[in-house]
Amino acid sequence: MTTTTPHSQAALDRFAQNEPAAIDRLIEWLRIPSVSTDPAYKPEVARAADWASDHLKASGFEVEIIPTGETPGDGHPIVLATSPGDDDYTGPHVLFYGHYDVQPVDPVELWASDPFDPQRQPADPKTGESERIVARGASDDKGQVAMFLEAARAWYETSGKPAGGVKMTVLLEGEEESGSVNLERFVAQHADRLKVCDVCLISDTGMLARGRPAITYGVRGLTYTEVTLHGPSHDLHSGMWGGKIPNPINELTKILSGMWDENRRITIPGFYEGVRDLTAAERAEWEGLGIDETGALKGIGLPPESSMGEAGFSMTEREWARPTAEINGIFGGYTGHGAKTVIPAHATAKVSFRLVDDQDHEKIRDAFFAWLDERTPAGCRWEQTDHGGGAPATCATDSPTLNAARSAVEHACGQPPAMIKTGGSIPVAGLLKTELGIETIFMGFGLEDDRVHSPNEKFELDCFRMGARSHAALIGLLRDGAAG
Amino acid sequence: MTTTTPHSQAALDRFAQNEPAAIDRLIEWLRIPSVSTDPAYKPEVARAADWASDHLKASGFEVEIIPTGETPGDGHPIVLATSPGDDDYTGPHVLFYGHYDVQPVDPVELWASDPFDPQRQPADPKTGESERIVARGASDDKGQVAMFLEAARAWYETSGKPAGGVKMTVLLEGEEESGSVNLERFVAQHADRLKVCDVCLISDTGMLARGRPAITYGVRGLTYTEVTLHGPSHDLHSGMWGGKIPNPINELTKILSGMWDENRRITIPGFYEGVRDLTAAERAEWEGLGIDETGALKGIGLPPESSMGEAGFSMTEREWARPTAEINGIFGGYTGHGAKTVIPAHATAKVSFRLVDDQDHEKIRDAFFAWLDERTPAGCRWEQTDHGGGAPATCATDSPTLNAARSAVEHACGQPPAMIKTGGSIPVAGLLKTELGIETIFMGFGLEDDRVHSPNEKFELDCFRMGARSHAALIGLLRDGAAG
Repeated sequence: MTTTTPHSQAALDRFAQNEPAAIDRLIEWLRIPSVSTDPAYKPEVARAADWASDHLKASGFEVEIIPTGETPGDGHPIVLATSPGDDDYTGPHVLFYGHYDVQPVDPVELWASDPFDPQRQPADPKTGESERIVARGASDDKGQVAMFLEAARAWYETSGKPAGGVKMTVLLEGEEESGSVNLERFVAQHADRLKVCDVCLISDTGMLARGRPAITYGVRGLTYTEVTLHGPSHDLHSGMWGGKIPNPINELTKILSGMWDENRRITIPGFYEGVRDLTAAERAEWEGLGIDETGALKGIGLPPESSMGEAGFSMTEREWARPTAEINGIFGGYTGHGAKTVIPAHATAKVSFRLVDDQDHEKIRDAFFAWLDERTPAGCRWEQTDHGGGAPATCATDSPTLNAARSAVEHACGQPPAMIKTGGSIPVAGLLKTELGIETIFMGFGLEDDRVHSPNEKFELDCFRMGARSHAALIGLLRDGAAG
Repeated sequence: MTTTTPHSQAALDRFAQNEPAAIDRLIEWLRIPSVSTDPAYKPEVARAADWASDHLKASGFEVEIIPTGETPGDGHPIVLATSPGDDDYTGPHVLFYGHYDVQPVDPVELWASDPFDPQRQPADPKTGESERIVARGASDDKGQVAMFLEAARAWYETSGKPAGGVKMTVLLEGEEESGSVNLERFVAQHADRLKVCDVCLISDTGMLARGRPAITYGVRGLTYTEVTLHGPSHDLHSGMWGGKIPNPINELTKILSGMWDENRRITIPGFYEGVRDLTAAERAEWEGLGIDETGALKGIGLPPESSMGEAGFSMTEREWARPTAEINGIFGGYTGHGAKTVIPAHATAKVSFRLVDDQDHEKIRDAFFAWLDERTPAGCRWEQTDHGGGAPATCATDSPTLNAARSAVEHACGQPPAMIKTGGSIPVAGLLKTELGIETIFMGFGLEDDRVHSPNEKFELDCFRMGARSHAALIGLLRDGAAG
C-alpha cells in the first residue's frame, strides 16, 4: 500500500492546531435546527445551507446554492462547490456528498438537553463513551461532513489551494432525512457537471466499533411509504357499530401483520426478486470480524434471545445482506389520555422496506401498494403516499480510490479499516451508480451507540478527529497520484 | 294497558308552555365542557354537576353533590337527589340514572361549529334531520337527562311536589364516558340509600328510527384496556436495526391481528364463556322490526357489502347479541409529517370488548392480558392498563314498571314503542343488577345519526319533546299506581 506524503503531515498538523476552533464551528452548525421533513423548519434548513456554503468558500471552493423542487424553491437547496484541481493533477475527480439536514427530534421529552443547544460532554468511563458533542445531527450527518470540511480547510491553509489541488466537487443535500425527493431531478438536470466525477466519497456510515475504523462497501436501499385505510365517513360509537362494519384499525393491523410469514420472510409477491445470495466466503469474512451482537443488544436494553428476524441468517447478515419490512409509525382512533369508545374513520401506517442488491425500490413500492389493494376490505379505500427511497449500492472492493482510502485511514488511525457493509440507506449512492455510473466509497466514523435518529444523539471527538485526519490523508494520497 | 290520567295532562301542557325555556336551559348546560376523561377539564365537570344540582333543587328535590374516588375528590362528583313521595304512594321507588359528563371532542377540526357553543339548527329536508341542537353531549347524555329534568320540573310546577309525589332517587354520574371507575365504590358505600329503590330508569339509548320510539331491554357490557408493548430501551435507526430485533409496532400488530379468526370470532380462550345463544323466536322478532341495515350503512358512507362481522349473524344480531373486540386507538413510532426511519421503543393500543349476557367483564380483561402475556416477544414486556368496564344487562320484559313505561311512551308519542336492545354499554345497569338486584329500563330517544362520540353530535327537538312527554306521562302512571 501507498504511504502518505509530507504534504499530508502539514495538513494533519494544521488540523491538530485548529481542532478547538473546528469543534466550535461544528457546534455553531448544530445550533441550526435544519429538520427537513417538517415544513415549519424551512428557513432553518436554508440557514444551514448558507452556513456550509460560507465554510466551503473560506476553504477556497467556488460555491453555488441551488434551489430544488418541481418548482425551484419548493424543495430544500443543494450546496454545490468545486475545486478545479492542479493543472498537473492526474488523480480521480472526487465527488464528496453529504447532507446538512437532520431528523426530527421527537420524542423531545426524552432528550436530556435541548437537541439544538449542543452540549460538549466529558468522557464517561461507565458507558465507555469518550468526550462528545450531544445534539441532533451531531453524528448524522453534520458531524461527519464537518470532518471533511475541516480537512479541506487544513489543506487550503497549508497549500493555498482548495482541496490541496485535488479536483473535487462537493454536493451537500438538504433532504436526505426526508426521502431525497428532489435529488433525482437535480442529478438529471445537472448531469453534465456531475458526470465529470469519477468516484463518490461519503461520510455517513459507522466504524466497526469504538476505536476500530471501517470502510463501508455497501448500503441498503429504501422504499418509504405511508398508507391510510379509510372506512366509514366519520368516527363512530364502538357500541353501536362494533362488530358490524370494518374498523380501519382492526383491518389495517390484520393486513399489515400478513407482511411476514412464520420465518419472518416478507410475503409480498416478487419481493425477493433480484436479491443476491450470500456466498460462503462473505459469511465467513463477516463472521471473522468478531462483531459483538450480544453487546449491541445489551446497548439497547435487550437480552441476547431478542435477536429476531429472517430465519437462517445471523444478525449481521440480516442487516447487511437481507431486506426487511418495518412499520415506522402507526396511528388511528383515540390516542389521548384514558378511554374513548370510538371506531375511527381511518387509520394510518408508515411502512418502509430496506432493500439489498439488486432489488428495485420502485418495483417494491408498486408491489406493496398492489398487495394492499388486493386486500382492501369491502367498502374501504386506501390512500397511498410514496415518501421516497433509493436503490441499494454495493461497490467494487478493488478500485484504486478505495485502496487509497484504506491506506489513508490506516495512516490516520494507526490500523487498517475493517471492510464492512451497513443496513442503513444512502439512496444517493444507488442514484449515482444508476444515473451516472459513479461508484461510492463510504468512509464514515459514526458509532453504533451514537443514537442517530433517536433522543440524545452524540458524536465522539475521537471519531471526529480520526475522520478529519483520514480525509486529510486521503487528499494527500490523491494529489500524489495514489489513485491515478 | 293503563291510560294516563288528567294529572299527566296538566304536566304535559306545562312542559309544552315551558319548552322554549327548557331548550335554553339545555343549551346552558351544553356550554359547560364536562369532558371527564381529560384531567384538564376537572373544574368544568364540577360546574356541570352544580348546574344539574341547581335544576333539581328548583324542582323540589333534596340534592347532595358527593365527591368520589379512592381519596374522595380524586374522581368526579355524583349528584344524588331524592323525592320522598306522597304518604299514600304505593308505586315503585324509581332510581333515575343519567350522566352529565361528555366524550372528548377530537378530531375537533371536523366539527362545523365549536362543540361547546351549542347551535340550534332548522330542519334539513336533505338529510331528514328535524330541528336540532348541535353540541358535544347534545344527545349523550345531557339532552336525554334534560328530558327527565324538564318532566320533573313540569310536575313540580303543576302539583307542587317533587316528581309529582313519586318516590324517587336521582343519581347523575360524571364519569360514564371515562369508564365509571368510581361508581362501583360509590354504590357499595351508599348501598343503604340505593337499595331502597325497586327499579332503575335510564335515558341514554336510542329510538328504533326517526319517529319510531323504543324501549331498550338490554345493553352490552364493556371491558376497556390499554396495552403498551415495550421493546428496545430507546428509539432506533431502522436501517441499523431493521430485521434484527423486535419492532414493537410490527409485533403489536401481529399479536392483535390474532384476536380474530377467519370467521371473525374472537380467539382469546374462554372469551365466549357464558354467551347466551340466540333463540329462533328472538331472531324472528328482531327480523320483524324491519331495521334498515342498508340505510344505516349508507348513513356512514359505506356500501351494503361492507357489513362485516362474526359469521352467521345479521348486523342487528351482531350488535345486540354478540360480543366483539375493537381497537379504538393505536399509536407508535413517528406519526408526524413525512418520513422518519425509526424503530420505536414502544407501541400502544386501546382495545375494548363489547360483552353480552352472561360474560364476566373482569374475567375477559384477565383473559386478554394473559393471552397477550403468552405472546410476549423475546426481550419485550407489556404495560397493561384497565380503563374500566361493566357487566352486560338484559332485563325481564314482564315487569309492571316496564309495562307502565311502554304505556307512557305510547300515550306521549302516539304509538307503542318497539322493544329492542343496543350494542352500547351502560355499565351501571350491570352494576345495579349485580350489587343491588335492581333491574333497569332504558327509555331513550336518541337517533342512530346523532353522531354521539363523533364530531357534530346533535339532538333533535322532536326527540327531546317525545322524551320529556314520555317521562311526564310515566310519572303520572306511577303516582296513579299503574306499577304498584
